[in-house]
Amino acid sequence: MTTAQLVHQIKTKKSFLCIGLDVDLTKIPTHLLASEDPIFEFNKAIIDATHDLAVAYKPNTAFYEAYGLKGWQSLQKTINYLNDNFPEIFTIADAKRGDIGNTSSMYAKAFFEDLKFDSITVAPYMGKDSVEPFLAFENKHTILLALTSNEGAFDFQTLTVGEEPLYKKVLHTSQTWDNASNLMYVVGATKAEYLAEIRKIVPNNFFLVPGVGAQGGSLQEVCQFGMNHQIGLLINSSRAIIYAATGIDFTQKAREEAQKMQQEMETILRTNFS
Amino acid sequence: MTTAQLVHQIKTKKSFLCIGLDVDLTKIPTHLLASEDPIFEFNKAIIDATHDLAVAYKPNTAFYEAYGLKGWQSLQKTINYLNDNFPEIFTIADAKRGDIGNTSSMYAKAFFEDLKFDSITVAPYMGKDSVEPFLAFENKHTILLALTSNEGAFDFQTLTVGEEPLYKKVLHTSQTWDNASNLMYVVGATKAEYLAEIRKIVPNNFFLVPGVGAQGGSLQEVCQFGMNHQIGLLINSSRAIIYAATGIDFTQKAREEAQKMQQEMETILRTNFS
Repeated sequence: MTTAQLVHQIKTKKSFLCIGLDVDLTKIPTHLLASEDPIFEFNKAIIDATHDLAVAYKPNTAFYEAYGLKGWQSLQKTINYLNDNFPEIFTIADAKRGDIGNTSSMYAKAFFEDLKFDSITVAPYMGKDSVEPFLAFENKHTILLALTSNEGAFDFQTLTVGEEPLYKKVLHTSQTWDNASNLMYVVGATKAEYLAEIRKIVPNNFFLVPGVGAQGGSLQEVCQFGMNHQIGLLINSSRAIIYAATGIDFTQKAREEAQKMQQEMETILRTNFS
Repeated sequence: MTTAQLVHQIKTKKSFLCIGLDVDLTKIPTHLLASEDPIFEFNKAIIDATHDLAVAYKPNTAFYEAYGLKGWQSLQKTINYLNDNFPEIFTIADAKRGDIGNTSSMYAKAFFEDLKFDSITVAPYMGKDSVEPFLAFENKHTILLALTSNEGAFDFQTLTVGEEPLYKKVLHTSQTWDNASNLMYVVGATKAEYLAEIRKIVPNNFFLVPGVGAQGGSLQEVCQFGMNHQIGLLINSSRAIIYAATGIDFTQKAREEAQKMQQEMETILRTNFS
């Protein structure tokens, strides 16, 4: 998917909501556990109930790998379901991969060619040759960890290297890599005050923003400091939407939560892009 | 597996060789491609031919994920084959994972409980709460990326933060985390001159050392600067061993390459630990 197609979808749906499909079998409605593939059935129900309110879905691979072969199968069925039925949806493999060059190429092949995701999250620690194999894919997007939403972000990401914190160095350096226009960045909502400065360094790239809701970040603040001329934000919510309820009405509750966020986003878009 | 068991195995086999099972279907002997699971058949043949010369095997997950469900199945069969037939072997999931706390817990569950690996490689960028969920597993080992063997290591890992390079900061900081005794570190052989200083910071932990052979690092130098009182090194070789030949004699050639390394290691051990 091109960035232009993503922006078009955002304007059409009046939403820049990404729903995280982090499926934990101990948290989903118990009536689903009897089905052959409870993870996929849960995802399908959530997607069916929310696809007009969200522009992106983001399965985190950890939650699938934890269930072994069956989990990997559920991931494959989920991405196939999205691609077959909702080709306008932007899909994100939240995999946080990264390895030496020829190995990163295998990961890129796995997620872009085999599973056909539009994008993947990638860790920056191993540098240029660990990320460029992902960037080489046309109309695929590499979402580089910059400043994450967790407490551990302060262990290394915010330390000063030379004259700037490491996460800014990651932003600056990555912009010099081949096909840098295929980069997006993970920037945690829990650190909204950093967003204005980050936006100055990378004015044109999209940010994937976790941490609104369950982790305490404010949507208003994120938009105030992080938006750019083409919106440039995908706000992720996982638990607050997919586990809004655990009874047979879980899809309705999930939809209500997604709708609340979409409506807040619509108001913000109307104020800034009309 | 405990560290003591690993050290015992090293002394018994007179080897600290780790063989990387990075299986690329375009590189394996063509006569295997007709079998139902060529990746597993290749691994089984390599393991059968080398298990008395190596103390560890390290499948890199990228090479399995690239083949989708079938690849994940081959990975599962490979680790099961190792655990069932060679329980003394130390197994490493070269996965370079790392995510926020509850998500890292899912990865730990995937690799330690479901697949039953002894260890996993983990990326440090997201800090303490992304690594501690792995460290919480008793007798399992978390192999943290410190200084990797690729060119991109110079993009961020060697930059100065405060008074030391980032990779040293990663070493120092990680030693303060809960269950730090379960840590090992990835230190590339291509940077052998750094090893003496790294060893000073973490005198007791094992290093997993890639980059000897195909990537140009010297075994003698790595041992000179990196060994500790309990050897403390696992030297990985992937391509130089598993792709030593591509004919029907590939297992014999792989064994010959593994034996060359084992003999060099035996000489080094005799000089230093007798």
